[in-house]
Amino acid sequence: MEPSPMPDRPNPIRETDDEARALALRLIEGARIAALAVADPATGAPYVSRIAVGLVGGAGLAALVSALSLHTRALRADPRACLLLGEPSGKGDPLAQPRLSLSATARFVPPGDPEDARLRAAWTALHPKSRLYLGLPDFAFVLFTPVSAALNGGFARAFALAASDLKLS
Amino acid sequence: MEPSPMPDRPNPIRETDDEARALALRLIEGARIAALAVADPATGAPYVSRIAVGLVGGAGLAALVSALSLHTRALRADPRACLLLGEPSGKGDPLAQPRLSLSATARFVPPGDPEDARLRAAWTALHPKSRLYLGLPDFAFVLFTPVSAALNGGFARAFALAASDLKLS
Repeated sequence: MEPSPMPDRPNPIRETDDEARALALRLIEGARIAALAVADPATGAPYVSRIAVGLVGGAGLAALVSALSLHTRALRADPRACLLLGEPSGKGDPLAQPRLSLSATARFVPPGDPEDARLRAAWTALHPKSRLYLGLPDFAFVLFTPVSAALNGGFARAFALAASDLKLS
Repeated sequence: MEPSPMPDRPNPIRETDDEARALALRLIEGARIAALAVADPATGAPYVSRIAVGLVGGAGLAALVSALSLHTRALRADPRACLLLGEPSGKGDPLAQPRLSLSATARFVPPGDPEDARLRAAWTALHPKSRLYLGLPDFAFVLFTPVSAALNGGFARAFALAASDLKLS
């Protein structure tokens, strides 16, 4: 995971501290959308799309996804995912603003499962407009279990976080 | 590439028309940042991070990347990339706003190549703050040749574009 340091540049990864852990958690808690990267099931090539996400107490980081979308079919074939969390504010340099590349394993929640009912209630609070499609039969919840994360707190402020640094519930 | 239609939902992919092609081109032309998905060279797992991008006349869609970053090492090992272009405005439902998942092949521009000099001049016009690190020896330009793209113009406005629909220069 560690990049090879260049002879003329120090290793850019800082030692993980409580400030970095707190920033990562704030980015996860505050996220309502994410860029979701998956492996295309037909080719294995990377694919990225925008999805709605939300941290649900007791369940973790969740998304509501349609069976019609490529990312859903991809995660059913290969549950390895990576989510980019932390949207630019629209002011200043977006690359100076913090974001998290969260590598995770996806798990689908079976419709009708008690966990599905709990997630539906929490989801409409996080995403009021989701009522429009929450009842469509091809939508299902997916939960993301963190594996590791790369936190970029701005230029030259990079951290490599382990799953143990990311206590989500 | 086409999702399997559900028995109770029509196939959501519309026929590509000039309006869709023009919207895709506007998203590429307007992009200054992107979520870049690559395959992690150690594991093959998807990885996504935020990078600066820009469309450079005569060259195409370009990014300036550091050899210290995972995405750069990933693209050197496997040039298959996907870029999510089109940032949410910050107002309204972000999933109702247009974005493009652009699948592409990455090609690194050798430092000292005449193309590198042309890109440096164009890049500072697109990204004035890049002067801070444009001279660092571990930064290089990468050009993305489109392979295909998924355009999402908002809920139920999805298009599957071919490379021939994306004339970048």
